[in-house]
Amino acid sequence: MSRLRNDTFLRALLREPTEHTPIWLMRQAGRYLPEYCETRRRAGSFMDLCKNPALACEVTLQPLARYNLDAAILFSDILTVPDAMGLGLYFTEGEGPRFERPLRDEWEIRNLSVPDPHAELQYVMNAVAEIRRALDDSVPLIGFSGSPWTLACYMVEGASSSDYRKIKTLAYSRPDLLHHILSVTSDAVVAYLNAQIESGVQAVMVFDSWGGVLSEDAYRTFSLPYLQRVVEGLTRERDGQRVPNIVFTKGGGLWLEAIAGIGCDAVGLDWTMDIGRARELVGERVALQGNLDPNVLFAPPEAIATEARKVLDAYGPHAGHVFNLGHGISQHTPPEAVSVLVDTVHAHSRKLRGGV
Amino acid sequence: MSRLRNDTFLRALLREPTEHTPIWLMRQAGRYLPEYCETRRRAGSFMDLCKNPALACEVTLQPLARYNLDAAILFSDILTVPDAMGLGLYFTEGEGPRFERPLRDEWEIRNLSVPDPHAELQYVMNAVAEIRRALDDSVPLIGFSGSPWTLACYMVEGASSSDYRKIKTLAYSRPDLLHHILSVTSDAVVAYLNAQIESGVQAVMVFDSWGGVLSEDAYRTFSLPYLQRVVEGLTRERDGQRVPNIVFTKGGGLWLEAIAGIGCDAVGLDWTMDIGRARELVGERVALQGNLDPNVLFAPPEAIATEARKVLDAYGPHAGHVFNLGHGISQHTPPEAVSVLVDTVHAHSRKLRGGV
Repeated sequence: MSRLRNDTFLRALLREPTEHTPIWLMRQAGRYLPEYCETRRRAGSFMDLCKNPALACEVTLQPLARYNLDAAILFSDILTVPDAMGLGLYFTEGEGPRFERPLRDEWEIRNLSVPDPHAELQYVMNAVAEIRRALDDSVPLIGFSGSPWTLACYMVEGASSSDYRKIKTLAYSRPDLLHHILSVTSDAVVAYLNAQIESGVQAVMVFDSWGGVLSEDAYRTFSLPYLQRVVEGLTRERDGQRVPNIVFTKGGGLWLEAIAGIGCDAVGLDWTMDIGRARELVGERVALQGNLDPNVLFAPPEAIATEARKVLDAYGPHAGHVFNLGHGISQHTPPEAVSVLVDTVHAHSRKLRGGV
Repeated sequence: MSRLRNDTFLRALLREPTEHTPIWLMRQAGRYLPEYCETRRRAGSFMDLCKNPALACEVTLQPLARYNLDAAILFSDILTVPDAMGLGLYFTEGEGPRFERPLRDEWEIRNLSVPDPHAELQYVMNAVAEIRRALDDSVPLIGFSGSPWTLACYMVEGASSSDYRKIKTLAYSRPDLLHHILSVTSDAVVAYLNAQIESGVQAVMVFDSWGGVLSEDAYRTFSLPYLQRVVEGLTRERDGQRVPNIVFTKGGGLWLEAIAGIGCDAVGLDWTMDIGRARELVGERVALQGNLDPNVLFAPPEAIATEARKVLDAYGPHAGHVFNLGHGISQHTPPEAVSVLVDTVHAHSRKLRGGV
């Protein structure tokens, strides 16, 4: 279906049969790799690295040089959109992302507008183009963004939070204002992801990292409809190729069937849900991506292999599985553990399909 | 069934009809109450307060003086058992509980033993007796402990954790050692809760605060069987009265049916699961306790009332519902919000039952 030498990942997302289960890892270009830390030191801050297309390309390719991964993912952050909206994204050591100017007043919310992806976000498009050239049709490149709800959480809280008190106070006190943020942000995410697709990404993923902190009722009010709006706005085909999308709500296992119903191609699963049961629930509606606990990678090689096989066996020999961790890989992961995982997934999934 | 002037809470746990839905709040004696902060200042540290029966009694009763709550809960901590095992529990401002001597070596794990609840933990039994005298059969008193898995998390990590890397590394590398910790801890929790019952608590709750960080397979291996062992070991009747128990796995919605099958009387729910769907799944097997998002209490009074009614309506007019938050009340909660909640729950649940 494509010029790619390895399009297993794209075919699995479209629930077409593949010879093995493709695997990539959330945050696969990251601090567990010494070569990443080296490039990061040269770049300066995390955002300096994101905004330098040559260096972003360099780190995107690092895990592919080490491991037999079936996809690359753009090196960037889920919060680039609100940064481009003027909120001032920065990172503090050990505390994660923060905004210099979180939304505090009604006028700030009313003033939000959709950033032009070819202005403030052009650095992302440049990185996409450079990475595609460097990948040279070896494996597909994944683009991504945070979900409207997750972006809104950071925009209102100003940082990650233990209780999401500020945004939930807004949700229960001034739902009109929160819906306004979510509406503008949805349009911004659509424009941003479509520009990434135009620039060359071959699949997109929406990270609803904080959807799971909501009640079901609030999730169905403040997150799910905006995920659906994003999915409905996405470019589905480019150059005659389908551009599949993946929606990942961390902690969203209870709402899996609802998520599978918004029109996405694939649903990402964190490690808390049994993937066999998840497949029973979604049937042939969507592909599933996941879902090994990232902490398994701290175990000895035999235990890593056993746990990886359990996930593959639970999903079974059906089409439509992309192997991944249930969350980003930990910075403390021994790099050798990833080799064991990738090789086990490839070998065992071939065996499951009746190969050798 | 009892001498209690208000035994609504106990009857709801046993799925007997009640005139209204009883309500209490996790952490109802806490920092959101100025009178609590006052007593806490007099006591010294958090553990000094726990270990002083007169002051523990004083704070236990404070929320009952303000609000029309249907139960009191012993003022204590979920981690008293490992403290009594010699790990040295202490609290740091803003960072929660920590252990001075977390389990690091195999010999420390092999040396663990069940503490005599009438030795190191006698201060808890003294507090229970003093609170029962002070309550004077007005409402029932709840006793509690952390679950074996949750205690093991803190015992191995030494504090709360963002990723539970140490205990999961143990789980996947040396499951034999983790099972040993869980086994000793289960026996300790049973002895401790039965001593609380002997001293006068009229219901018990087991807090599996960190069960939800596990995969389903790991939950069924390292948490659920030990919850079942605790439930099976509990004294079920004292002085001719049933002593109901509640099991609460935060983040355990996906495993609700499995939890409902371990022989407990009631299951606590966090706010992420729709309680109406939860009731469909458990049917008449257990009572349910929960499950309003604690952040709703930051909303204006009408919104608090609306959200509380949604939870009551979702459960419906059946017996077997104890209203609670889905997690401990936030220290930032305005005390007036709790009045609105308690009064709404009582009034609306009477209406649901066809009263006025």
